[in-house]
Amino acid sequence: MRRKSFQRMPCPIARTLERVGDWWTILILRDALHGFRRFDEFRESLGVAPNILTARLAALVEDGFLEKRPYSEKPPRFEYVPTQAARDFRPVLISLMAFGNRHFAPEGASVEIVNTQTGEAADIGVYDRKTGKPIAAPDFRMQAGPAARASTKARYARRNVEEGAA
Amino acid sequence: MRRKSFQRMPCPIARTLERVGDWWTILILRDALHGFRRFDEFRESLGVAPNILTARLAALVEDGFLEKRPYSEKPPRFEYVPTQAARDFRPVLISLMAFGNRHFAPEGASVEIVNTQTGEAADIGVYDRKTGKPIAAPDFRMQAGPAARASTKARYARRNVEEGAA
Repeated sequence: MRRKSFQRMPCPIARTLERVGDWWTILILRDALHGFRRFDEFRESLGVAPNILTARLAALVEDGFLEKRPYSEKPPRFEYVPTQAARDFRPVLISLMAFGNRHFAPEGASVEIVNTQTGEAADIGVYDRKTGKPIAAPDFRMQAGPAARASTKARYARRNVEEGAA
Repeated sequence: MRRKSFQRMPCPIARTLERVGDWWTILILRDALHGFRRFDEFRESLGVAPNILTARLAALVEDGFLEKRPYSEKPPRFEYVPTQAARDFRPVLISLMAFGNRHFAPEGASVEIVNTQTGEAADIGVYDRKTGKPIAAPDFRMQAGPAARASTKARYARRNVEEGAA
């Protein structure tokens, strides 16, 4: 489907999409963060063809999202353990889940994040850990960073950030 | 690349990935939320082949992310305006940006979100808009929702949510 590599784009979204690779990769990360470790666990959870799963797991190890560790010597067997990079990806997965529940779950949520005190479903948004404030105008704005090219600087000359939902 | 449809999976992440379709689609949403409206603006920003862009824009209109509006009658010309669904997707894009800056920007950030008062880069995480608390154990946990199948219920029997990064 892809006709060009996104790797040379400066945009951090494009670069992440390039590395995460394809949808299977994101679902494997989801499962790894849910505690799945072994090839057969991923295969059964996803219903993915073994050759595709082998390739995706190898790419995730190569890109530093999973660590391949032996858990048996005879026969040789490996498990796949999420790294800090994988854990850093969790906010993307949680945001995707919230979006899917809002827009693509007409029958109701299949999975949700709830407040353990109240039992209420969380209303998930993005915020700044330093100040506790939502990422929204006028408190925050998107701008070209220190490594921006001229084209990126022009693009983000002055841009406020509106929060995704009320 | 995809061998099966994710549409029948109950997981809200899988369903979102199915609809958002491919990486180009996510970058088109990014540009639409940055104020791009016209075919040529998207084409120049992305360097994407016109036939691919045409197909992706049509799918985004079909799936309710963009509204196609005429801005000229002679010649007939259209612009693409983001809907509320597109705006609801913003936390996913912001989380992807934060992840890319952390892991795939060795030369420094090309684009970043800053606090307009202090000029400091935001440290982006996910939180609950109702309580203002980070989505993390022990305050929150992931569980099967009201529409869960038996297999989903088994999977999420009791699961705390750890925040992605410190």
